[in-house]
Amino acid sequence: MNQPRESDRLIRGRQALAAIDGDAGEKVVSALADIAPDFATYLLEFPFGDIHSRPGLALREREIATIAALTAMGTAAPQLKVHIEAGLNVGVSQQEIVEIIMQMAVYAGFPAALNGLFIAKEVFADRATHAEQESL
Amino acid sequence: MNQPRESDRLIRGRQALAAIDGDAGEKVVSALADIAPDFATYLLEFPFGDIHSRPGLALREREIATIAALTAMGTAAPQLKVHIEAGLNVGVSQQEIVEIIMQMAVYAGFPAALNGLFIAKEVFADRATHAEQESL
Amino acid sequence: MNQPRESDRLIRGRQALAAIDGDAGEKVVSALADIAPDFATYLLEFPFGDIHSRPGLALREREIATIAALTAMGTAAPQLKVHIEAGLNVGVSQQEIVEIIMQMAVYAGFPAALNGLFIAKEVFADRATHAEQESL
Amino acid sequence: MNQPRESDRLIRGRQALAAIDGDAGEKVVSALADIAPDFATYLLEFPFGDIHSRPGLALREREIATIAALTAMGTAAPQLKVHIEAGLNVGVSQQEIVEIIMQMAVYAGFPAALNGLFIAKEVFADRATHAEQESL
Amino acid sequence: MNQPRESDRLIRGRQALAAIDGDAGEKVVSALADIAPDFATYLLEFPFGDIHSRPGLALREREIATIAALTAMGTAAPQLKVHIEAGLNVGVSQQEIVEIIMQMAVYAGFPAALNGLFIAKEVFADRATHAEQESL
Amino acid sequence: MNQPRESDRLIRGRQALAAIDGDAGEKVVSALADIAPDFATYLLEFPFGDIHSRPGLALREREIATIAALTAMGTAAPQLKVHIEAGLNVGVSQQEIVEIIMQMAVYAGFPAALNGLFIAKEVFADRATHAEQESL
Repeated sequence: MNQPRESDRLIRGRQALAAIDGDAGEKVVSALADIAPDFATYLLEFPFGDIHSRPGLALREREIATIAALTAMGTAAPQLKVHIEAGLNVGVSQQEIVEIIMQMAVYAGFPAALNGLFIAKEVFADRATHAEQESL
Repeated sequence: MNQPRESDRLIRGRQALAAIDGDAGEKVVSALADIAPDFATYLLEFPFGDIHSRPGLALREREIATIAALTAMGTAAPQLKVHIEAGLNVGVSQQEIVEIIMQMAVYAGFPAALNGLFIAKEVFADRATHAEQESL
Repeated sequence: MNQPRESDRLIRGRQALAAIDGDAGEKVVSALADIAPDFATYLLEFPFGDIHSRPGLALREREIATIAALTAMGTAAPQLKVHIEAGLNVGVSQQEIVEIIMQMAVYAGFPAALNGLFIAKEVFADRATHAEQESL
Repeated sequence: MNQPRESDRLIRGRQALAAIDGDAGEKVVSALADIAPDFATYLLEFPFGDIHSRPGLALREREIATIAALTAMGTAAPQLKVHIEAGLNVGVSQQEIVEIIMQMAVYAGFPAALNGLFIAKEVFADRATHAEQESL
Repeated sequence: MNQPRESDRLIRGRQALAAIDGDAGEKVVSALADIAPDFATYLLEFPFGDIHSRPGLALREREIATIAALTAMGTAAPQLKVHIEAGLNVGVSQQEIVEIIMQMAVYAGFPAALNGLFIAKEVFADRATHAEQESL
Repeated sequence: MNQPRESDRLIRGRQALAAIDGDAGEKVVSALADIAPDFATYLLEFPFGDIHSRPGLALREREIATIAALTAMGTAAPQLKVHIEAGLNVGVSQQEIVEIIMQMAVYAGFPAALNGLFIAKEVFADRATHAEQESL
């Protein structure tokens, strides 16, 4: 990566990541720093700077698509967690997230949906704890 | 299946299937008649009578979720075809379908997205042919 | 779910779940109560009230099929654990479970079989501990 | 493969393949002859000479497991076709095969089950055609 | 894609695609032109302009990795075909390709390896036909 | 398994396992002893005694293929860990392993690559700790 300055894509990606994934996205980028720093750049540039920044589909709908796909695949628990957070950040409600995940029982089977629901339960519980702590 | 009369779920499922999948759904049900007629009943009852009839998520958003999941899984080409049709039936535009499928390159890889795009291309072409024929 | 009374399917599903999965199934249903109670209903109704209650295949053979599928998929460790328990409950022996899982090396690769065998090992060890405790 | 004589495993594998997969298995072995003849040997030796020849699980139950797994995986249509044939050869009835495949809707989703059912439909139709031709 | 001029990544990607995938890659790019032209750009930029152009791993080894992965996944037949071609273009021999695919029987099961071998057989046969035609 | 003496394949497999996977492979074999000892034999015989002992592809390249496949599949974390170790044992550098795993983002999606990178990070850290302890 011979990029003396940050490319437009990287800058746009950083902004999109912050808007969508919040702290969770930033943690992933940091965790890559000592093993594959270029991969953190690619992650900012392509998924966030390119794809999620495209105008043709609303961010809210992009997260609906991502939550559905990651639940159905069943191989991406940490990323599903991040994107349930992301969904809540861009206007998908808890009830809607539960609906999306339940629907995956039809397309990927009950185990995929069950595992997705228990991940959502964990994210919602973490959120509630944080909200409570901040209100003290 | 000891059901002398059609259950409410089955009736609701038939209506949902017609509204969402149109002819394509009906063809699947017919094709099951001589091998697994009970499975046609389950298909109407659970995915359509139960899940797609739930109020918590709009039909349009349910199809966004389904198109994303089937593209990412990569094992369900005939069903992806039906649900691209379904998406168009419930208000997802061709451009939006292309956006959803392209986004899957991020989560399931470029081959999954490429295969999905070529299926969409086929569905869009079929639609254009039918529309042309009807306008004659 | 506008069901004032429990449907026949739900009652049949509860009975089938108790007979097949025992406590493990009940725990899954309870864990869903605060996040997706309707999904617990669907889980009882469709997989257990509809499918596992069908006469065309013995329960023992249904569990052989399920253990094989979940091992091969490799994305459903908690459900594989429940269904290894279920297999033992409906007459599949420990040796037969080991045979089914080993066979999956042929169809889904050695990693899938290895991961399945280590889950079986855990279930068998838990059973042995419980049996010992009850005999005291 | 420096094996001047056929090993016991290979001989046992040939017999098991003939008993289980019949002609369909032999066709696969032949098709490998010009691209990967050693792989044909491995296929006879490990899946058939080792695994399917083990005494701990009946052949009928081994085919139930295989049909379930291949349906659930959704990536092995030609092999599912061979093993539906194999199931019929070792005593699994058409109705039971339909039950196994329908059950996979629960564990791997409706598309997996639908695609499996349509493969079974094809195999059953081929069988009926052959039976009819032979009775003339 | 507001890119008045071709970016360095796009130019580098075009060169890498031509060197690796040859005509097969160009056909994929053309086929995208009327459905998702931006996706063709992404395909050139990220997989080819970014990843395959990185210095840390030889092209030959990158194709070994890709052939292995696509065989194991079992959901990307058209891409496996392209990358078997690509492997041959960058110095992986036919025998080595057969070895890589056979090895996948261990990690992803015999069906994945069998399906991969039959795709390789097809690619090798096409090559032989073309070579013969050109020598006339 | 009626094998009074160790077969050539088993002896060759033991040597290959020791050379490739080192201690990690031996631990897997030991862990199988009380649940499926025959499976340990198969693991030594087929993947190691047969496949990895074949002359047509270098061990280093076989591990490149395996690391790629297991990362892409996303269902085999413990085996990916063992094979990252194995790669290091047969001459794949840490940087090359990172390149292989990053490349899988293209073919199997960013989540597969991210999960693979974090597993590699763990293996590299364990190695560094051991190396430090041994140097004291």
